[in-house]
Amino acid sequence: MSVNNRRPNSSAAKNKAVNTKRMKVKPKNGKPLKPHKRSGVNKKNSARSEQKPPIKIMFLGGLNEIGKNTTLFECCNDIFMLDCGMAFPDGDLLGVDLVIPDFTYVEENIDRIKGIVITHGHEDHIGSLPFLLSRVKLPVYGTPLTIGLIENKLKEFNLDKKISLNVVNAGDTIKLGCMKVEFIHVNHSIPDSVAVAIHSPAGTIVHTGDFKIDCTPVDGGMIDLARFGELGNKGVLALLADSTNAERPGFTPTEQTVRASFERLFARAEKKRIIIATFASNISRIQQIIYCAEKSGRKVAFSGRSMINYVTVAKELGYIKFNDELVIDIDMIKRYPPEKVVLVTTGTQGEPMSALSRMAYSDHRKVEVGFGDFIIISANPIPGNEKAVGNVVNELLKKGCEVVHESMYEVHVSGHACREELKIMHGLVKPKFFIPVHGEQKHLRKHADVALEMGMEHKNIFIGDIGNVVELNEHYLKQLPSIQAGKILVDGLGVGDVGSIVLRDRKHLGQDGILIIVATLDTGNGNIISGPDIVSRGFVYVREAEDLFDEVRANVDDILYDCAFENIHDWATIKNRVKDGVSKLIYDRTHRSPMILPIIMDV
Amino acid sequence: MSVNNRRPNSSAAKNKAVNTKRMKVKPKNGKPLKPHKRSGVNKKNSARSEQKPPIKIMFLGGLNEIGKNTTLFECCNDIFMLDCGMAFPDGDLLGVDLVIPDFTYVEENIDRIKGIVITHGHEDHIGSLPFLLSRVKLPVYGTPLTIGLIENKLKEFNLDKKISLNVVNAGDTIKLGCMKVEFIHVNHSIPDSVAVAIHSPAGTIVHTGDFKIDCTPVDGGMIDLARFGELGNKGVLALLADSTNAERPGFTPTEQTVRASFERLFARAEKKRIIIATFASNISRIQQIIYCAEKSGRKVAFSGRSMINYVTVAKELGYIKFNDELVIDIDMIKRYPPEKVVLVTTGTQGEPMSALSRMAYSDHRKVEVGFGDFIIISANPIPGNEKAVGNVVNELLKKGCEVVHESMYEVHVSGHACREELKIMHGLVKPKFFIPVHGEQKHLRKHADVALEMGMEHKNIFIGDIGNVVELNEHYLKQLPSIQAGKILVDGLGVGDVGSIVLRDRKHLGQDGILIIVATLDTGNGNIISGPDIVSRGFVYVREAEDLFDEVRANVDDILYDCAFENIHDWATIKNRVKDGVSKLIYDRTHRSPMILPIIMDV
Repeated sequence: MSVNNRRPNSSAAKNKAVNTKRMKVKPKNGKPLKPHKRSGVNKKNSARSEQKPPIKIMFLGGLNEIGKNTTLFECCNDIFMLDCGMAFPDGDLLGVDLVIPDFTYVEENIDRIKGIVITHGHEDHIGSLPFLLSRVKLPVYGTPLTIGLIENKLKEFNLDKKISLNVVNAGDTIKLGCMKVEFIHVNHSIPDSVAVAIHSPAGTIVHTGDFKIDCTPVDGGMIDLARFGELGNKGVLALLADSTNAERPGFTPTEQTVRASFERLFARAEKKRIIIATFASNISRIQQIIYCAEKSGRKVAFSGRSMINYVTVAKELGYIKFNDELVIDIDMIKRYPPEKVVLVTTGTQGEPMSALSRMAYSDHRKVEVGFGDFIIISANPIPGNEKAVGNVVNELLKKGCEVVHESMYEVHVSGHACREELKIMHGLVKPKFFIPVHGEQKHLRKHADVALEMGMEHKNIFIGDIGNVVELNEHYLKQLPSIQAGKILVDGLGVGDVGSIVLRDRKHLGQDGILIIVATLDTGNGNIISGPDIVSRGFVYVREAEDLFDEVRANVDDILYDCAFENIHDWATIKNRVKDGVSKLIYDRTHRSPMILPIIMDV
Repeated sequence: MSVNNRRPNSSAAKNKAVNTKRMKVKPKNGKPLKPHKRSGVNKKNSARSEQKPPIKIMFLGGLNEIGKNTTLFECCNDIFMLDCGMAFPDGDLLGVDLVIPDFTYVEENIDRIKGIVITHGHEDHIGSLPFLLSRVKLPVYGTPLTIGLIENKLKEFNLDKKISLNVVNAGDTIKLGCMKVEFIHVNHSIPDSVAVAIHSPAGTIVHTGDFKIDCTPVDGGMIDLARFGELGNKGVLALLADSTNAERPGFTPTEQTVRASFERLFARAEKKRIIIATFASNISRIQQIIYCAEKSGRKVAFSGRSMINYVTVAKELGYIKFNDELVIDIDMIKRYPPEKVVLVTTGTQGEPMSALSRMAYSDHRKVEVGFGDFIIISANPIPGNEKAVGNVVNELLKKGCEVVHESMYEVHVSGHACREELKIMHGLVKPKFFIPVHGEQKHLRKHADVALEMGMEHKNIFIGDIGNVVELNEHYLKQLPSIQAGKILVDGLGVGDVGSIVLRDRKHLGQDGILIIVATLDTGNGNIISGPDIVSRGFVYVREAEDLFDEVRANVDDILYDCAFENIHDWATIKNRVKDGVSKLIYDRTHRSPMILPIIMDV
C-alpha cells in the first residue's frame, strides 16, 4: 500500500504548495524500490560475507538527552545525516535560547556527505537545519509535511531559496551514495512521520525515528508494521529505536482516546467558552478539536504564532481539514457568545511568553479569561516544566476558570511507544545488533532491558553517547575512537559565543548579584584621585544597606592606602587585594558571596 | 486509649532527653480534658446561641502554596498560633535560601498571643520558629519528637535556653486563654503527628494538620478516627484540612507497602552494596530500612548532616530502635564487603549539595559509587525537582549503578490523604463550615469539590489566601479585612533585605550578564580624563568579542564628547545617554540585552 492512499490529499496537490527548488523523488510507481541486493544476515549460507564492508554510525546528538537528534551513517566513504535537531536548554544554561550539535565533523567531511534525511517535523529533529545549512549546502529529504515545515523555518533565515528540499513519501526509497534509504510509515504526534530502513553494502539498518503503534490513529493510517516484519524476515543488521517511553509499561493509548475525552468535556462545558492548549505541531489533536467544535456548533480561533504557523502549513498541504467559515480570527471571538467559541492556543509547558501563560497572568492583549472559561491543557508537562505548568493552572483557577489537565482526564496521549510496543518492534525487526536512541541514560538502559527480555545477547547491545562511533557488519559491532561532538549554545544572534565561563558568571550573578568597586588612582604614586565608589546590583536593597556600604568604602580606602604606602603599582595585585578584602568583609556581615569586581582607572 | 500506649517508650523516658526549660502539661490521667462546655452547633435548641462570641482565623501562610503553614486563631481577644513553617524558594526567587511568613501582625499583637502549637516536626510547620522566636518570646507546645526537633533547631540559633518548650501527647488538652487545644493522633510521614481540636467559646474547630489514614502504620498506631467521629457527633463548627493530595483519587497506600518492596529489592541486590535515599525526617522509613538490613545481615551507615541529626534525635526519644552494633560510621563501610552494607542518605530531590548528588557527580568525600551499587530512591520528586532528580539518576546509571526509583517500584508512599481518605475525614467530622488548607489553588479547589461531593453547601466553603481573616460562629462565616501577610525572603544572614528590585536584577544578570562602562570625567568641562573602559561578566566570551567591545568604546567616546560639547554636566543625563546608546548598539549586533551599567567618576 502506498502512503498516498492514506493521505488526505493527493501527493501532487500537497507538493504544489511547497515546490521551492524541490524535486520529486521518483519512486517506482509509489512502491518501494527493491532493497539493495544483499545476503541476509540471518541466512546460513553467508560464508564469504566477511568481505562485506562495515557501516559506521556516528552520533552528534540524541543520546543521553531528549533533543538534538542527529546521526551520521557512513559506508564505503559515503555519508548521510539522519535528522538535524535542536534541544531546548536545561535550566542551568542561563539565558541560552537553544542548543545545537557541534557540526565540526560534518563541515570537515562535507565532500563525502550526500544529504540529510529527516524523519518528521519536530524541532528536536529539524531545529538545527538553519544553523547547519547556513554554513554548508546539503540536499534535504523528507515527507511533504516535514518539508513544508522545514521550508517555513528556512524562510526565516533566508535560506529557503538556497537549499534543495526533496519530497518523498512513505514507501519511497532514495539513493545516497552506496546506501539506499527507504521510508516507512509510523505513528507519532505529528503526521507524516517515518522510520527509515538503510540498505547498505554492510546490511540493512532500521532506525524507527520517533514512533508509537496506533492501530486507530486520527490521520495517516496505522504504522506499517508489515514492512518492519518483512525487513526482519529478510534480515536486519541493526535496530536503532526510540527510547523515550522505555520506562513506561504497557501500550500508549490511541489518539482516539483524546477524541472521546474532548467530546465528554465539550458537553460538560455547556455555556462556557472552551480554551484548549496543545502542542502546535500536534496536527491530529488540532483536527480533533475542530471536529468537536463543528459538532457542537462552535467557531474555532487560534492563538500563538507557532500555532497559526503550523495550522497554516498543515492546511495548505491537506493535513488538516476544515471549512473556512468554521475558523475565525482571534479578534472576532468577542462577537460570539462564549458557548459558540473554542480557542486553540500554545502554552502547554507554562512557558512565560506563551499565549496561555499570558492569559493566566492577565497579560494577553486579546483574551481575558475568567469565570466563563473552560480550559483544557491537552499535553503532559515535559520534565522540568511541572512547576511552571502548575503555576499557570493555579492562576487560571484563581481567576475563576475551570481547568482540566492531564492528571485528571485523558486529554493527552503520548506520541512515543511504551514497553509492549517496543517489544513488538524488536520482535518484528529481529535485529542482530541493537542501539537504543532518543533518550536519557535511564531511558536507554530501560530500552536495553527490553532487548534483553526479547532474548538479545548483552554483547549485541550498544548504549552510546554523543561523539561515539560504532562500526558494524554481520560479524561484529565495535566502538571506534570518538569524533568531536557537544553542545553549541545559541543566545540571540550568537552561536557558540556563550561557553562555560560566561555561564558560570551568569549563575554567580543570578544567585548573588554583583558589587563593583571603582576608583581612579594616580598612575605615578597610586594615590586615590577619585572614589572609591561602590555600586551593586542584585545583592541587597541598597537604601537599607548604607552602613554596610560605608564600611566597604572605608575598607577599600584602607587597602588602597596600604598599597600606595607599600609602593605597589601593579594593578592586578591591587585588584586582588581589594577583592579578597571586600569578599571577606561582605561574607562576615551577610553570609553572602556576591561577585566582587574591582575596577581601577588610572590618570 | 492514651497515646502513650502506642509509643515505643514511656512518655517519661522520652521527656528525659528534651527537658530544657520545659514543663510537662498535665493531662487528666492522660485522657483528654472534657471539651469546653458548649451548645452543639448541630443541636436544634440553640436558640440563644447568637450571643456566642465568634472566632477569627487568620492565615499567615499555607494557602496557595505548599509551605510556611502558619495560622492564627483568635477568640475573645485571645490568640494562639498553629504551626510556624517555612517554605523553600521557587526557582524565580534566585539566591534565596528560604521563605518565612510576614510576622508583623504577630509582633503587633504579641500581648494577646498565648503560645504556638505545632502539629508535627516538618520544616513547613516548624521552620520559621527560630526567626519568629528571636524577635518575640512565646511558649511552644508539641509532641515529644516535634519538641525534640524544635529544640535541636533552636540550639543552632542559641535560642533553646530562652524559649519555653512544652511536651504534650496525643489525647492531651492544653488551655490557651479562652481556647482549649486538644491533640489527636494522626498518621503522616513523620511520627508523633497530631491534628488539633480547638474548643472555643464559638464552638469546636478541627484542624487536621498533615495527615493520612494508615490502618497499619509502621509506628505509632492508626489515626484516632474514633475521636474525630466523637467530635463530629458532638458538633464541629469548622474543619480545616490538608489538601496536598486532593487531586489524587483513592487511598494513599500504607507505609507497610514500602517494607514489602524493600524486602524484594534487598533480595535482588544480592552481592551489591545498597544505598537508599529518603527524607531524613521519615523516621518510619528509616526504621524499615534498619529492619531489612538486620534481617539480611547488613550494617547500616548514615550519610548527610540532616539524616544524622534526625536519626540521633529519634533514637534518643525512642522513635527509632536499633542495636548500636548494627549501625556503623560512614568511614567504616569500606571495611565491610558490599553485600554487608546499607547506606542511608539524603538527596531524594536531586539537591546539588546533597549526599546522593555528590555521589552521582563523583564529589562525595567518602563514598564512591559504581557497578557494585544498588541504589533506591525512596521518595517522589517534589514538583519542580523532577529534572534534577532525573539528572542524578542518569549520572548514577552512567557510573554503572543499578537504580530503582519511584516510577518503577513501590519504594515510596505519600504522607498525605487522597480523596477517599479526605471523604472519611469529612464524613466523621461533619463540620458546618469547611476551609481547605495546605495546598496550592488547584489542591484547595479539588478539596472543596470533595466537600461538595459530601453534601456541603457551596456557601459554607471558604477558599482563602494568605492575609485573609475569616470570622465565624454557628450562624455565619464571613471574611473580614485582611491583615499584613507575605513572603519574607531569607538570604544568608539577611532576613527581608532581598526584595523585588534585587530579584529583578538577579534575574536580568543571570539571563544576560552585565556590561559596565567606566569613565573618569573632568568635573569642570566634562572632558574624558580616563577611560572609557568596558568590563563585562556573563555576557559574551570577551576574547572573541574584541571588535564589538572596540565599537562600544568608540560609541561611548562619541556620546561623552557630544555631552561635553553640548555642555551637559548632569551625570544622570550623561549616564542615560550612554546606557541608551550602548543598549541599542549591543542589541543590534547580538540580539541580547545585558544589563548596561555606566559609572562616571569625576575629578
